[in-house]
Amino acid sequence: SMDGAPTPASPAGLSAYVAVSQLLGLTLLATTGAWLGRYRGGVAWHSPLQFNIHPLCMVLGMVFLQGDALLVYRVFRHEAKRSTKVLHALLHGLALVIALVGIIAVFESHRTKGIPDMYSLHSWCGMAAFVLYLLQWLLGCGFFLLPGASFSLRGWYKPQHVFFGIALFVLSIAACLLGITEMLLFNIRDSYSHFVPEGVLANTLGVMLVAFGLVVVYVLTRDDWKRPPLAEELALSMDFKTLTEGESPGGGS
Amino acid sequence: SMDGAPTPASPAGLSAYVAVSQLLGLTLLATTGAWLGRYRGGVAWHSPLQFNIHPLCMVLGMVFLQGDALLVYRVFRHEAKRSTKVLHALLHGLALVIALVGIIAVFESHRTKGIPDMYSLHSWCGMAAFVLYLLQWLLGCGFFLLPGASFSLRGWYKPQHVFFGIALFVLSIAACLLGITEMLLFNIRDSYSHFVPEGVLANTLGVMLVAFGLVVVYVLTRDDWKRPPLAEELALSMDFKTLTEGESPGGGS
Repeated sequence: SMDGAPTPASPAGLSAYVAVSQLLGLTLLATTGAWLGRYRGGVAWHSPLQFNIHPLCMVLGMVFLQGDALLVYRVFRHEAKRSTKVLHALLHGLALVIALVGIIAVFESHRTKGIPDMYSLHSWCGMAAFVLYLLQWLLGCGFFLLPGASFSLRGWYKPQHVFFGIALFVLSIAACLLGITEMLLFNIRDSYSHFVPEGVLANTLGVMLVAFGLVVVYVLTRDDWKRPPLAEELALSMDFKTLTEGESPGGGS
Repeated sequence: SMDGAPTPASPAGLSAYVAVSQLLGLTLLATTGAWLGRYRGGVAWHSPLQFNIHPLCMVLGMVFLQGDALLVYRVFRHEAKRSTKVLHALLHGLALVIALVGIIAVFESHRTKGIPDMYSLHSWCGMAAFVLYLLQWLLGCGFFLLPGASFSLRGWYKPQHVFFGIALFVLSIAACLLGITEMLLFNIRDSYSHFVPEGVLANTLGVMLVAFGLVVVYVLTRDDWKRPPLAEELALSMDFKTLTEGESPGGGS
């Protein structure tokens, strides 16, 4: 903690699950890099390799960074709520910028090659995930960082924000799986069914994406791992409860 | 309720969300049927159309019936827990049988056409979802329907059962999206990018699958829509709580 007092212990198991999530996340990025580098010629902006920027940015932004932004309230469970909130917003903001670069890469690559945009289920799911993620980020900043929103309005919006945050993270992973399938059927359609190494590697990347999502959502939804309110938040939320008998937004976020 | 007493009201909104989920679910089935009937020649077991049994059975079993089995504790919130539990197990069992028929259909169709099995990300995710779903069903029957498991063992397993139940439902939907993408890229690879009606219809089916999953999981995870314990369950769980101070499995399932 920031005040130099001894750091309170995290619940048993939480640290192990977070460590596994980070190992999985880094392995995801390494595997994506290995696939693009070893079998797809690498990445470069002004070149026929521009397309390859797309999967790299989407896995980094929409999966790894989005997942880590969701975990900050569990990892920094004894820091001041305000600092954790700002970190949460910054990580999501970084994820959005990197995802935007990845989206520009695929649109420019399509334009260069004369391929139409937005016709596939992957593009529909992926674009929906990105646009709704941006909207969710704007709403989150508006409700929780700007001073305007009342305590009760924040309390009403918080469960929606949490539910849709997890839903968009899961949809982002599903969009990545669809992208992997598209890339394989476009590039190695005939050899994919013979278990060539590129197909097995990309399938394994898909399985690891599912595993990363599973571990992150497990950590987020376990009741006894929710962030405990700090002493001063608890006092505030008790005062508030006696006034409204509603749920307090100061409770485990 | 079964004893003839006036039925207690469900929370406002819950019935509307359940109704939307059922409308979406039936529309899913109709859309799958329309796709296969209008563009893929229909379904038949001993014929080249055997493959088409696969998507129909998987959407019916692994999505619609699995989703409805998850909803029974919200829909029949004032029935005896035991009856609701049996219905939950029966619906999942029916879903498993129908999914098994769908899996046999694709393996037989592959054998007839000389196509290898289990090479794609769709097959890996789908088979993982089915095998883990069967395991989850067996564990659920063992812990909650057979008389052997102790009250505290049930209480320990219940949160795991709920988490993995929702996770497998979501993975099943993701596997369907991958299957849609595979089918489109195998069947209409060249015209898909020109927004032909079959592609748009199948993409729309994918979006509806996501919407169905979203509504079902929203209903399942909303705290104030959880099944309230009946009077006799509450008494039992209070007795139990004073003994163990652990969480009671009689509480909102």
